[in-house]
Amino acid sequence: MVRNGAVESPSPRPRIHQTHPHDTPLFQSTVSQTNLRRFNYWILVFRLSAFCFSLSAAVFMLTTNAADSSDSPRWYHFGAFRFVFTANSIVAVYSIFQIGTSVWEIYSGCTVFPEFSQVWFDFGHDQVFAYLLLSAGAAGTELARQLRGVATCTANNSFCIQSDIAVALGFAGFLSILVSSLLSGFRVVCYLINGSRFVH
Amino acid sequence: MVRNGAVESPSPRPRIHQTHPHDTPLFQSTVSQTNLRRFNYWILVFRLSAFCFSLSAAVFMLTTNAADSSDSPRWYHFGAFRFVFTANSIVAVYSIFQIGTSVWEIYSGCTVFPEFSQVWFDFGHDQVFAYLLLSAGAAGTELARQLRGVATCTANNSFCIQSDIAVALGFAGFLSILVSSLLSGFRVVCYLINGSRFVH
Repeated sequence: MVRNGAVESPSPRPRIHQTHPHDTPLFQSTVSQTNLRRFNYWILVFRLSAFCFSLSAAVFMLTTNAADSSDSPRWYHFGAFRFVFTANSIVAVYSIFQIGTSVWEIYSGCTVFPEFSQVWFDFGHDQVFAYLLLSAGAAGTELARQLRGVATCTANNSFCIQSDIAVALGFAGFLSILVSSLLSGFRVVCYLINGSRFVH
Repeated sequence: MVRNGAVESPSPRPRIHQTHPHDTPLFQSTVSQTNLRRFNYWILVFRLSAFCFSLSAAVFMLTTNAADSSDSPRWYHFGAFRFVFTANSIVAVYSIFQIGTSVWEIYSGCTVFPEFSQVWFDFGHDQVFAYLLLSAGAAGTELARQLRGVATCTANNSFCIQSDIAVALGFAGFLSILVSSLLSGFRVVCYLINGSRFVH
């Protein structure tokens, strides 16, 4: 893997040598501001949906407490539900920050951080938070399954249903941030190959 | 996002218009067979480690049965442990197939499938299996935590230790396949941008 250095050669890009029949011809295109703008809109859409899903997952988990009797189960008694709540809150905060930077980039045409930091920051955080949400969702699902086995759910069914919904919303948030991480990964490789985040 | 079409223009690649000070110059380099070969060796290393870890996780989970008394817990009584075993077995089989295609590519210089299918196949499966292993690991961890809460572990401690080791090995396999998926994702974007899997 190479990093773009300070190499600025005026010579045309050399053609790829056709070594075997599977090679397809080099794709040549003009750089388009329109493409970058459309790409940014797509990222913005997925970040918005990640924000909505993870925020509602966190809120659902938080309001799972609403049982009246004092000996009924609370969500914070269960490690996996605390994990679901924490992961979704972190992702909601991160998403609202990323929505801000996306809107800024669409309107001003430049990134908030220097371009190198920005593309790596986006991709790295998207990846980590996607894996975080998925593991929270998997742990929450397993705990919810276990709770159905013991008597907790028959005695207090609304608790189980509400925590199931929170876990499911967390999975929806995971899907959104997964797509965001693929898009920002595309931008990283654009940057590594071309030295700019522009999409060809 | 663009796909490479049948466009084969002999004109030099246009320079990116410098719209703002964050833009760095276009990176120009010659395509190097050596780079591709080194890249393929790295992928092979991570696939080998994914194979070793996921195979040993599956075997460890399988041999967790070795308790002598008939009423002792068995791993297949627990949904999450079955999930851990299945996910790791699938990844082990997939990894051995991918080791074969990697070795083939290093020795023959061409891919097993056509290049377009190959790069997308690798990346898609790596992504899916990375998420599969992570969710299996998270669910297995949550179940192991729950088992410590009830009396299963005090009565039968070797069962719990062995299943913990299996889950941990599954996480190590996840890390290997995560790195593989990043590398094959890089190849996909190389292919999308340049129309070949060659790494510049």
